Amino acid sequence: MLLVALLLAGLVLLALGLVRFAGRPWLGRTILETETTSGKVFDALLMLAIALSVLAVVLESDPLLRQHWSGTFLRLEWAFTLLFSLEYLLRLLLVAEPRRYATSFFGLVDLLAILPSYLGLLIGGGQLFLVVRVLRLLRVFRVLKLGAYLQEAELLWSALIAARRKITVFLLAMVTLVILIGAFMYVIEAGNDGFGSIPVAIYWACVTITTVGYGDVAPVTPLGRFMASVVMLIGYSIIAVPTGILSAEIGLKVLRPAEATSTGSGEFQTPQPEDPKPMIVCGACLKDGHDPDARHCKFCGAEL
Amino acid sequence: MLLVALLLAGLVLLALGLVRFAGRPWLGRTILETETTSGKVFDALLMLAIALSVLAVVLESDPLLRQHWSGTFLRLEWAFTLLFSLEYLLRLLLVAEPRRYATSFFGLVDLLAILPSYLGLLIGGGQLFLVVRVLRLLRVFRVLKLGAYLQEAELLWSALIAARRKITVFLLAMVTLVILIGAFMYVIEAGNDGFGSIPVAIYWACVTITTVGYGDVAPVTPLGRFMASVVMLIGYSIIAVPTGILSAEIGLKVLRPAEATSTGSGEFQTPQPEDPKPMIVCGACLKDGHDPDARHCKFCGAEL
Amino acid sequence: MLLVALLLAGLVLLALGLVRFAGRPWLGRTILETETTSGKVFDALLMLAIALSVLAVVLESDPLLRQHWSGTFLRLEWAFTLLFSLEYLLRLLLVAEPRRYATSFFGLVDLLAILPSYLGLLIGGGQLFLVVRVLRLLRVFRVLKLGAYLQEAELLWSALIAARRKITVFLLAMVTLVILIGAFMYVIEAGNDGFGSIPVAIYWACVTITTVGYGDVAPVTPLGRFMASVVMLIGYSIIAVPTGILSAEIGLKVLRPAEATSTGSGEFQTPQPEDPKPMIVCGACLKDGHDPDARHCKFCGAEL
Amino acid sequence: MLLVALLLAGLVLLALGLVRFAGRPWLGRTILETETTSGKVFDALLMLAIALSVLAVVLESDPLLRQHWSGTFLRLEWAFTLLFSLEYLLRLLLVAEPRRYATSFFGLVDLLAILPSYLGLLIGGGQLFLVVRVLRLLRVFRVLKLGAYLQEAELLWSALIAARRKITVFLLAMVTLVILIGAFMYVIEAGNDGFGSIPVAIYWACVTITTVGYGDVAPVTPLGRFMASVVMLIGYSIIAVPTGILSAEIGLKVLRPAEATSTGSGEFQTPQPEDPKPMIVCGACLKDGHDPDARHCKFCGAEL
Repeated sequence: MLLVALLLAGLVLLALGLVRFAGRPWLGRTILETETTSGKVFDALLMLAIALSVLAVVLESDPLLRQHWSGTFLRLEWAFTLLFSLEYLLRLLLVAEPRRYATSFFGLVDLLAILPSYLGLLIGGGQLFLVVRVLRLLRVFRVLKLGAYLQEAELLWSALIAARRKITVFLLAMVTLVILIGAFMYVIEAGNDGFGSIPVAIYWACVTITTVGYGDVAPVTPLGRFMASVVMLIGYSIIAVPTGILSAEIGLKVLRPAEATSTGSGEFQTPQPEDPKPMIVCGACLKDGHDPDARHCKFCGAEL
Repeated sequence: MLLVALLLAGLVLLALGLVRFAGRPWLGRTILETETTSGKVFDALLMLAIALSVLAVVLESDPLLRQHWSGTFLRLEWAFTLLFSLEYLLRLLLVAEPRRYATSFFGLVDLLAILPSYLGLLIGGGQLFLVVRVLRLLRVFRVLKLGAYLQEAELLWSALIAARRKITVFLLAMVTLVILIGAFMYVIEAGNDGFGSIPVAIYWACVTITTVGYGDVAPVTPLGRFMASVVMLIGYSIIAVPTGILSAEIGLKVLRPAEATSTGSGEFQTPQPEDPKPMIVCGACLKDGHDPDARHCKFCGAEL
Repeated sequence: MLLVALLLAGLVLLALGLVRFAGRPWLGRTILETETTSGKVFDALLMLAIALSVLAVVLESDPLLRQHWSGTFLRLEWAFTLLFSLEYLLRLLLVAEPRRYATSFFGLVDLLAILPSYLGLLIGGGQLFLVVRVLRLLRVFRVLKLGAYLQEAELLWSALIAARRKITVFLLAMVTLVILIGAFMYVIEAGNDGFGSIPVAIYWACVTITTVGYGDVAPVTPLGRFMASVVMLIGYSIIAVPTGILSAEIGLKVLRPAEATSTGSGEFQTPQPEDPKPMIVCGACLKDGHDPDARHCKFCGAEL
Repeated sequence: MLLVALLLAGLVLLALGLVRFAGRPWLGRTILETETTSGKVFDALLMLAIALSVLAVVLESDPLLRQHWSGTFLRLEWAFTLLFSLEYLLRLLLVAEPRRYATSFFGLVDLLAILPSYLGLLIGGGQLFLVVRVLRLLRVFRVLKLGAYLQEAELLWSALIAARRKITVFLLAMVTLVILIGAFMYVIEAGNDGFGSIPVAIYWACVTITTVGYGDVAPVTPLGRFMASVVMLIGYSIIAVPTGILSAEIGLKVLRPAEATSTGSGEFQTPQPEDPKPMIVCGACLKDGHDPDARHCKFCGAEL
């Protein structure tokens, strides 16, 4: 308890010192922006740190490695935690609207990346904390978000958004189908231990219709195997449906990128993915979607 | 026997009372229509009830849960049965042509949703009744049918209809292929217990060509494994065929939605899925497909 | 030996008698043509006979059924053999150029449908003969070939033909990939009994890259599992390649059916699948591909 | 050691003799070019030799075959090694710029095809050497590179190149997803031996999301199976993404081959795959991509 308080106090002091000595503008350019030279170096190092910290969490889960290298893992974990804590504090200090940042999606992910270690110290860490740390991976997308791959990701995303209703209809039909098939197979394969209850039979139907096919649950009666063959052929055939939907949408986007979407996608709640605007990111609140002629962030008012 | 008769009599009385006291127009707007406020609330509650009743059936199949909560499941089952019975009776009373409703697809599904419980009481319920209850899930589609997702479902459906001949040819070729492959593998893998008869070998061929791959039946001879590899590559390659068919059809629909379909789809037996007409549903027989200027249902003559 | 000779002599006499008494023109219209009323009835009965005879072969392979119904299966087998033999003889007698028919693809399939039973009588039937009988299924396609589904099958077929070079390149790359992956996994998973030789490792690579995944051979070392994950992701990604090829080809065909194919498909060896000519089948030699204004078969000279 | 030196000396002498007696121009036409008659014969023989040598390596790995035919395999291996060594030396002698050839991709592959046998003699061959020999398969692509299938391969390749950013984004999202899913399943399925560490759980997530589904690791808890079903449905749905991307790209290429690619593919580092130039290969350095009016190779300066 005391230890955590001391640690945090030390980190806050360090962050304040850094802001004072390195200079607010230079630090802002490095940490918040992504197009400056120092910003690029910082992003590269950050991605490396994220990758290494996730790798450490992943390897720590191996019983053998944990036994032999537990000390190393603990030290690595704290090194990364302190590093990310410092970065979080600096972002809070540098951003124009700290509260907006702290409650934004990436702000919460940044907090989630460091919280488990402190909580583990306070209330005894469980396995769940270990896994929450893997969520650090999501931080990678902040860096990517501002990269050259954005346009492509946006194309894919907008095709998904445009097809979202078709996909919903398709998934709903799939879920209904899987429940009905599961219920019938439960009756057909009565006596087969693998099909002991309808939920398990539904799990089997999922495994089969998606063509995964573990084989941990498999039909043994002739009728069950016949039904299973029919289910497989259905799954094999309807795999074409989402593909067809997306192909058509992506094809449309690629053919006429400006005009964009198809039937029924005219009433967007969130206009942002469709947006052909150039990528301008507010240095304060890290949000994008600004008009090319905007001078101030339309979300937090900071100068762009 | 007597109990069922009493129950039904009570339900009929309740339904008649409801119609008298709540008023026929208001009840009709609530239960039959989907665009009014009360209709939307009713549909939402109905979907919830359907989902919960199916969940109860699914969970009841688990041996452990059934043992500990058998009383709760029985009470839930009867609560839902009585609710759906009341709704069925109200629909029968409110609809202009009860006979047409009772013999329509959704009318039969509504009946199937309540029948098993009564039959279980009369002649002793078996497992099959339990499963028939899962068919209640199909009722969900009545609600959906009139929602915002209709247009998308119709697009998908009309693409499937337009591609139906290509899909038939494809499935026929698949079935022939699977039977031939099964017969040959039966000879090749003679002595392997997994391939004990041609039907089982055909089941294996299905499992393999659809890329499901349980592994409960698998080749062990070198020649068998070589043949299996060839079958896999065939399956992997021809998975493209249905996708290609559907992509082209959906692409066509999206590009020119009015004109629609491709070669050989000009002679529809059922013109309805292709129909670009607005969705007008007859309140009496629940059928759609009416012209925008129609004043009476073309199926049952009820006023629209 | 003698029995077979007697049987065949009897069949020939029966066929000759039939031709004499039923009349050559009527029999020709019934057996060879598919658009006349009697021809349609004959085709329907023939498809039924084929389906039943294949079903008998498939069910006979089941050890239990074979034990209890061996007599019935034997009698069924001979009934179908005699029926198909009679049909074969009649076709030979009715067709304008018997030799051409006998050496055509469907002529050979017709012969293969009856030969195994006679050979089984002469030299003792083995399992292989049993399976060859399943080839009767291919006869179904003769009937289909002249049906309403021809146009669709031709569209699919011509898309496959137009994409044949792309598919060849793709399959060659797949085979190379699978051999290389197999060889490396053999070294990585040395000591794992499942990967006992490179051929088995190649079989595993096939099972994995096509996403079949039996699980009869599976990696156990960390490096092997990492490699396997990479192979899966490759397989999952390149599954898109044949689909993309075919989608584009089918899309092209559907968009502009006359013009048809893409790059590099101008130099067809076999012009027939591309052929937009109407389907005219010669009653004598059963070949199609005649011009709309042709009066005589261009293959055998018989009047059309 | 001495043996290898003697062997190599003999080979060099043989190569020099061949060049002298067969004539440099004729040998060059045969070995380096692919459109001349002798060049086509040579390429066909080379492909046969490659296929046979790889087959020998693959079969040698089978314990039974290795035991009984070890002598034959050894002799075959040396026959192929000497043959390929001679070919490599001849190429070095005939090519205009030997150093450029020796450091090119295909030059290194040619060297890799013969090196393992000599190294095995010098330092004792391990299994790894055996496998490196399978890399000979890559040599097949040199022959293919200049064949009629080039255009199709280039179409596929350029579609892949044009879609490379979209595919990168997709693969990155997949890897993130797989790691996150693996970490959560590790916590959910704690106690299941199959999910003993996060790396294994990630392997399972890969197996599941790609729909491979070995079944060597499978969830057993109800929550784990529910999560697994969700993962399968995700995998089944996003399988559409790469397909959609590629279909659109290939469709574009096929529709307007000259203009080619979509958004964001204008800034190629390597312009060669997009190149609609005719295939002109430098006889010296084996590189292609020359302008139709080029007289000298733009890479090594040799005359074309």
